[in-house]
Amino acid sequence: MASLITRLNSGEPDFLQRLHALLAFEATEDEAIERAAAQILASVRTQGDAAVLEATNRFDRMQADSVASLELAQSEMQAALDSLAPERRAALESAAARVRAYHERQKAECGSDGFMYTEADGTRLGQKVTPLDRVGIYVPGGKAAYPSSVLMNAIPAKVAGVKEIIMVVPTPDGVKNPLVLAAAAIAGVDRVFTIGGAQAVGALAYGTDTIPQVDKIVGPGNAYVAAAKRRVFGTVGIDMIAGPSEILVICDGTTPPDWVAMDLFSQAEHDELAQSILLCPDNEYLDAVLQSIARLLPQMPRQDVIRTSLANRGALIKVRDMDEACEIANRIAPEHLEISAENPDVWADKIRHAGAMFLGRFTSESLGDYCAGPNHVLPTSRTARFSSPLGVYDFQKRSSVIYVSEQGAQKLGKVAAELAYGEGLQAHARSAEMRLKDGGEA
Amino acid sequence: MASLITRLNSGEPDFLQRLHALLAFEATEDEAIERAAAQILASVRTQGDAAVLEATNRFDRMQADSVASLELAQSEMQAALDSLAPERRAALESAAARVRAYHERQKAECGSDGFMYTEADGTRLGQKVTPLDRVGIYVPGGKAAYPSSVLMNAIPAKVAGVKEIIMVVPTPDGVKNPLVLAAAAIAGVDRVFTIGGAQAVGALAYGTDTIPQVDKIVGPGNAYVAAAKRRVFGTVGIDMIAGPSEILVICDGTTPPDWVAMDLFSQAEHDELAQSILLCPDNEYLDAVLQSIARLLPQMPRQDVIRTSLANRGALIKVRDMDEACEIANRIAPEHLEISAENPDVWADKIRHAGAMFLGRFTSESLGDYCAGPNHVLPTSRTARFSSPLGVYDFQKRSSVIYVSEQGAQKLGKVAAELAYGEGLQAHARSAEMRLKDGGEA
Repeated sequence: MASLITRLNSGEPDFLQRLHALLAFEATEDEAIERAAAQILASVRTQGDAAVLEATNRFDRMQADSVASLELAQSEMQAALDSLAPERRAALESAAARVRAYHERQKAECGSDGFMYTEADGTRLGQKVTPLDRVGIYVPGGKAAYPSSVLMNAIPAKVAGVKEIIMVVPTPDGVKNPLVLAAAAIAGVDRVFTIGGAQAVGALAYGTDTIPQVDKIVGPGNAYVAAAKRRVFGTVGIDMIAGPSEILVICDGTTPPDWVAMDLFSQAEHDELAQSILLCPDNEYLDAVLQSIARLLPQMPRQDVIRTSLANRGALIKVRDMDEACEIANRIAPEHLEISAENPDVWADKIRHAGAMFLGRFTSESLGDYCAGPNHVLPTSRTARFSSPLGVYDFQKRSSVIYVSEQGAQKLGKVAAELAYGEGLQAHARSAEMRLKDGGEA
Repeated sequence: MASLITRLNSGEPDFLQRLHALLAFEATEDEAIERAAAQILASVRTQGDAAVLEATNRFDRMQADSVASLELAQSEMQAALDSLAPERRAALESAAARVRAYHERQKAECGSDGFMYTEADGTRLGQKVTPLDRVGIYVPGGKAAYPSSVLMNAIPAKVAGVKEIIMVVPTPDGVKNPLVLAAAAIAGVDRVFTIGGAQAVGALAYGTDTIPQVDKIVGPGNAYVAAAKRRVFGTVGIDMIAGPSEILVICDGTTPPDWVAMDLFSQAEHDELAQSILLCPDNEYLDAVLQSIARLLPQMPRQDVIRTSLANRGALIKVRDMDEACEIANRIAPEHLEISAENPDVWADKIRHAGAMFLGRFTSESLGDYCAGPNHVLPTSRTARFSSPLGVYDFQKRSSVIYVSEQGAQKLGKVAAELAYGEGLQAHARSAEMRLKDGGEA
């Protein structure tokens, strides 16, 4: 059973080294993919629709005669929604409502109104917050087609006030995913094109005759899509390029071991590179979880993926105490952190770095993935040290506002001129001095 | 005089084409620079201090015998501050105080406290906001050494609550800039190393025995620094890679033409690629500004740079009216937008995309560059469509917080399981179902 998952103990002298080896993940850049993506982008940039059409017909085995014919009518999304089994439709609508409610709260609480204040001399300073005009959402086709991702990417944009949301989703061999189209209808996506790959990223970034240019592209995709997104960054905004998904569970030993085993599986089933780690001060509890893993694994349809992921990247780690577990969690800066313990807030207060925290034994990560409300697009690979969940703020931007009164210009002009001369920028200095009553216009 | 700066008229049929040609700016990637930066990063990553020391001695013509000897004592920063002429010191301190006050306001107004709310069944949802642990600030050496940049990069980090700020600044031939060191003292920079280039970026991103790893690197640099920052992105956070600086002035014709001419100069003097554009509905006023340009230019110490910048990238544009000027401004999405007009708020309300807006004829952009308070690190090259001024929020990150009550788990578990089965993720579904009273633990 030892081969199912690595066991570590924080008390061993080489623990930190072994932990770092376990966490190490180097995103390999494939030169061939980089080159192919660059070529497709260049052709879309120069040839527009013609290049998008050619690539789509070729890669997705389609026979479209125009990019316009690859756009889906709103009625098609509505029909997909109407075709769903009632329980599934209800679940999707309930998830969307909760995600919307959370992000509306986020919008209200995160300074979306901007601010403005006036100083004694009449000078006004502040910040204006505005939504992006138009956003593109990439949705993968085929097996990784997740309707929940449509909700998680589109709803914050909608709540932010983005005027137009354009979704692209490849439909290889013309096969459409009704759940994805239904999610687009519920989320309020404005237009849908059945295109994908680097050609879709290029079309959104540069615009074509048929597909309007967007200001930002979000959503997951394969290696070609990731390479293309990295390349168009700067022309448009992009979200983070996600690494393999991760869960870190801190458990005080009071949660049923089966629950924790299944939580580890729920991350491991994503793909072989996903990482599931459990920290616990109780070695016997770790034994019990290992027993649960061994017993439950054969029941899982995706057991091969889970087995590989747990064996290569998973770990059960015995820690000194819950305080040390929190320290290690801050070092790992995990995408998902479950604190499956009595009084989880005590430990949550000690956490500085995590994409999302799931507190208490009833909060399985899967609830957050679908319907708790907060976003499931989260920073991976230790980037929670400096980045945040996808949110309303990703679809807004800020502009500083400066109004200097005539009186204010007298005081500020002297300061600015002094510093500008110090930096050798005389036009800056003169521009400030011209507004001075004693140094203005000749 | 026609060769001084391009004249355009929005009424001409090819106007948009000509405008786009004027705005077009392609950041060229130099393969040799990319390769050199990659090599230096790789050597710093594997050899740490030794590589940093070797590169610093070679590129900056230094004879240091250890990286530790390249660290400056706090007393050296304080001595630099004490050495300044009183007016210059007062100006620097006054600028810092105003920048600090603005960013403290920003922190208070932008949701830095996070939020938390409780639903009827006891489920709690929210967002925790935390500062980054440690930030690196890159400060260029030589001619582009701007103390104002030290203030603008360090103060928001400090206000955000970053515990340690590490500044790197190359000192070619050992020459230190006292204004830069004084600014570091005022801004509260914690440690300063006299290193630069890709080796400094690598040291901050990966950490060495002497230089601690940071979570984010901000601040401007040359092409090697920019290439290195792009490469370490993901390992650490970075700020935007800035393009050439830009100013767009919208004037209703009521501002003294010399003032506007000098405002255009103040951008153009940065470098030959900087862009200065004026929009005005009054052709005679544009003639007057052109006269001012011709008369004032020979007085400017940096007239060669200004002349090239205005000739190649500047424009005076006759527009139909102020409304059209605002439409064009939104299309340009400028870094700096001056609305030099009566009742500037009327026009500011119509602006959706700008890094910073300078309202009223007394608000020269140079006041904002130094001491108005808002940040001077702003999105360039139309990226104001989707990005924001550097701010306190760039030194904070958010974590979602989800606590689902036992009762909440009954309702949410069914929704999550239904959607997880729909996505073929059975472990996700089972993980949620185990928390149901009728479907839990065997």
